[in-house]
Amino acid sequence: MTKPQPLPLFPHRHLLGIKGLSPIDIELLLDRADDAVAISRQSEKKTTSLRGRTQINLFYEASTRTQASFELAGKRLGADVMNMSVASSSVKKGETLIDTAMTLNAMRPDILIIRHASAGAAALLAQKVDCAVVNAGDGAHEHPTQALLDALTIRRALGRIGGLTVAICGDVLHSRVARSNIILLNALGARVRVVAPSTLLPSGIRDMSVEVYNTMKEGLEGADVVMMLRLQRERMAGAFVPSVREYFRYWGLDAEKLKHAKEGALVMHPGPMNRGVEIASEIADGPQSVIQDQVEMGVAVRMAVMEALLDPRRTEAGDAA
Amino acid sequence: MTKPQPLPLFPHRHLLGIKGLSPIDIELLLDRADDAVAISRQSEKKTTSLRGRTQINLFYEASTRTQASFELAGKRLGADVMNMSVASSSVKKGETLIDTAMTLNAMRPDILIIRHASAGAAALLAQKVDCAVVNAGDGAHEHPTQALLDALTIRRALGRIGGLTVAICGDVLHSRVARSNIILLNALGARVRVVAPSTLLPSGIRDMSVEVYNTMKEGLEGADVVMMLRLQRERMAGAFVPSVREYFRYWGLDAEKLKHAKEGALVMHPGPMNRGVEIASEIADGPQSVIQDQVEMGVAVRMAVMEALLDPRRTEAGDAA
Amino acid sequence: MTKPQPLPLFPHRHLLGIKGLSPIDIELLLDRADDAVAISRQSEKKTTSLRGRTQINLFYEASTRTQASFELAGKRLGADVMNMSVASSSVKKGETLIDTAMTLNAMRPDILIIRHASAGAAALLAQKVDCAVVNAGDGAHEHPTQALLDALTIRRALGRIGGLTVAICGDVLHSRVARSNIILLNALGARVRVVAPSTLLPSGIRDMSVEVYNTMKEGLEGADVVMMLRLQRERMAGAFVPSVREYFRYWGLDAEKLKHAKEGALVMHPGPMNRGVEIASEIADGPQSVIQDQVEMGVAVRMAVMEALLDPRRTEAGDAA
Repeated sequence: MTKPQPLPLFPHRHLLGIKGLSPIDIELLLDRADDAVAISRQSEKKTTSLRGRTQINLFYEASTRTQASFELAGKRLGADVMNMSVASSSVKKGETLIDTAMTLNAMRPDILIIRHASAGAAALLAQKVDCAVVNAGDGAHEHPTQALLDALTIRRALGRIGGLTVAICGDVLHSRVARSNIILLNALGARVRVVAPSTLLPSGIRDMSVEVYNTMKEGLEGADVVMMLRLQRERMAGAFVPSVREYFRYWGLDAEKLKHAKEGALVMHPGPMNRGVEIASEIADGPQSVIQDQVEMGVAVRMAVMEALLDPRRTEAGDAA
Repeated sequence: MTKPQPLPLFPHRHLLGIKGLSPIDIELLLDRADDAVAISRQSEKKTTSLRGRTQINLFYEASTRTQASFELAGKRLGADVMNMSVASSSVKKGETLIDTAMTLNAMRPDILIIRHASAGAAALLAQKVDCAVVNAGDGAHEHPTQALLDALTIRRALGRIGGLTVAICGDVLHSRVARSNIILLNALGARVRVVAPSTLLPSGIRDMSVEVYNTMKEGLEGADVVMMLRLQRERMAGAFVPSVREYFRYWGLDAEKLKHAKEGALVMHPGPMNRGVEIASEIADGPQSVIQDQVEMGVAVRMAVMEALLDPRRTEAGDAA
Repeated sequence: MTKPQPLPLFPHRHLLGIKGLSPIDIELLLDRADDAVAISRQSEKKTTSLRGRTQINLFYEASTRTQASFELAGKRLGADVMNMSVASSSVKKGETLIDTAMTLNAMRPDILIIRHASAGAAALLAQKVDCAVVNAGDGAHEHPTQALLDALTIRRALGRIGGLTVAICGDVLHSRVARSNIILLNALGARVRVVAPSTLLPSGIRDMSVEVYNTMKEGLEGADVVMMLRLQRERMAGAFVPSVREYFRYWGLDAEKLKHAKEGALVMHPGPMNRGVEIASEIADGPQSVIQDQVEMGVAVRMAVMEALLDPRRTEAGDAA
């Protein structure tokens, strides 16, 4: 991690989505992340690779785990990290996203982490600013570091991703996590299933390389990985908000439904969980769950992404200056 | 501070309360804190003893002084400090305390500082996480670093604690500060008085080692230390909220009432003060007041506690890894 | 920046306003700021000149850009920076500004940055605390670092300030920015015009050394610099809130009005902008705009101010200890 010379240069200036990354790009980030895991397991969890670099976390949607993960990742790399509290910011004074971004840009950050309710916000920003941009979730579009941390978790647990069957279950409609995962898992050669009620499937789902299932029993049959999604009731209009009880009965992962998956299949969830809604507590806390590992891998993946984007070889070449 | 080898190892992994600490444990922390005072009085107020360690402040109740005190303590020890803003966190998305704690735990912090409205929250957390936990106030239960900073303030001003008479006055019912102080002062051999209207005394008070007084005149008679408590009207139900004017007349510390205490008795208050309610401004700002010293000692005590809990000898032995 | 020995010692302990600074004081800060610009343009934007110093940002009014600018300035100088979130602070518990300040003071900060809605808040604080105080905006009184960054921007773009004609336009009534700029620009020998409707002029404006104009056409005639102000509708009482459309027509800077200024005149705005209200987007983003430069200079000026106030020669002399 301290002298990453042997690693190839990551060829992108920004991380806006998984779409556009080659399998080699993805593997490169996962390899770097494997190294980063070790740093956070040390007593002195600190490198100097981003010393003197400025990281700004610009979160227009609140998020405990994602913002904390990026903040710790940056601090452990030695960066100066600044959180922009959006509720108390100029947003109230009516300033636009672009004006805020240009203002921050003039303060010469090296990397801007953005979460925003609108799809495309990160890409828009990347066109305007001089620094690296990481998409930490933009509307229902992409959440690339989540897909990378999920991939890292799977690769470390099962040794590979290619050839595995991964069932992504639940509220696919509102999920940028699902979208980024579908793209990444396909890129690395996994077989991806989507398991959801038709009301929670996006209209274009059949154009993506997925198999669609309408029952958990069929969808989980023989799966190596069961990836549950959070039921995002807060994003649902009044018309169709499923009853929690009904939802759990048909779509919540419990011991009974999990039996259909391959023996010892991994159980994943991006968090925060609605226990008793999309997942039973006994499964969330059970032996097949790698939900805590996902969180740990999140810090490692974000360290890897930021190091890759701010690779000193890039700056020396004048690319990102 | 930089090489604390000669100090004995603090035998606890967490600081959940004063209860359970031996007089030797308490004196050890106070001795360490005496060293820490000097650091904050330097121009370059910085050590490297917690360099690369991750400290998370998880505050479910807002608190200017306590959170700031822990944050500065951690930064002056060289730790990476992260504040979790609870209002903008997953709490809104319905995540439980334990799920939040497990998520943070997976990010591999070294120490978690928690303040929560429920008694027992810190102890619950400590059972679940792998890192050290410090209770920064849990309901009406304990606030151990407050009691330690009060003790340090008294010890530095009067040279000892054993044998002193300390009068704790006012809203004892809602005060975790009072509770922690009663336990600590008794442990170190002080004589503790509780001076309050019967409506502001907890039901179990007579089971603690205190003398109960129902007038300030009698309660302060000959006291070495007068410790005022904040009237916590925000925690009172509609039925009994005392009128400020009446309260001040009978229970507010003014020059007249203070005359009953020993000449030059110390005046203390944990802050924030309700001036003109539990204490007169002339007393709060007067020559006997050590209220500002308490704040300074707060940073020192928190530095001492965190250093003691993260003593490298403990980590090497694998105890807290 | 690392060894600022050759620079003269800044003779003030605090920066409460531009009023009271000599032209030499101002030039000294601008010279220091010129050096600081280079630091933020490096890849490793970090010095150690404030290592181990504690900076507290105490913002009673939300401000994206000013707080972020001070935070980054402090971090790039190596200081430990703590933001006090006022909404979640003891303010709610009724603590006064002075009690909060005294509490923070007891934690031994080296520098306190304060923004407050009341004129004089910074000066009041400076009388009470032991550390350096920087006014980051107090009511409609002063905002000295804004005036300094404006001056730095002008000096770098036009080579000088003395002899220039600067037109300050719009909502002068509610603007501490205007006030600080008028004082500074006069001190350095510029000719200052104020261009505003009479309803947006403070009553004492004719006692300041300014020429007052009531039309943009006349006010901009031959100006070297056009400094637009934000229309602060949120500070206006119900009686006179101008219609945005009418305001833009008469007072908003567009290409037509800008033609009256000197060819290539600088266009400035302290931000956040109300596009289409006090300034047209084509001008804000046009070739004469130095609005982004102002933001960059903001970080540099704040680095310079904090370094000047915490000059080690001062501490050694015991002045600010």
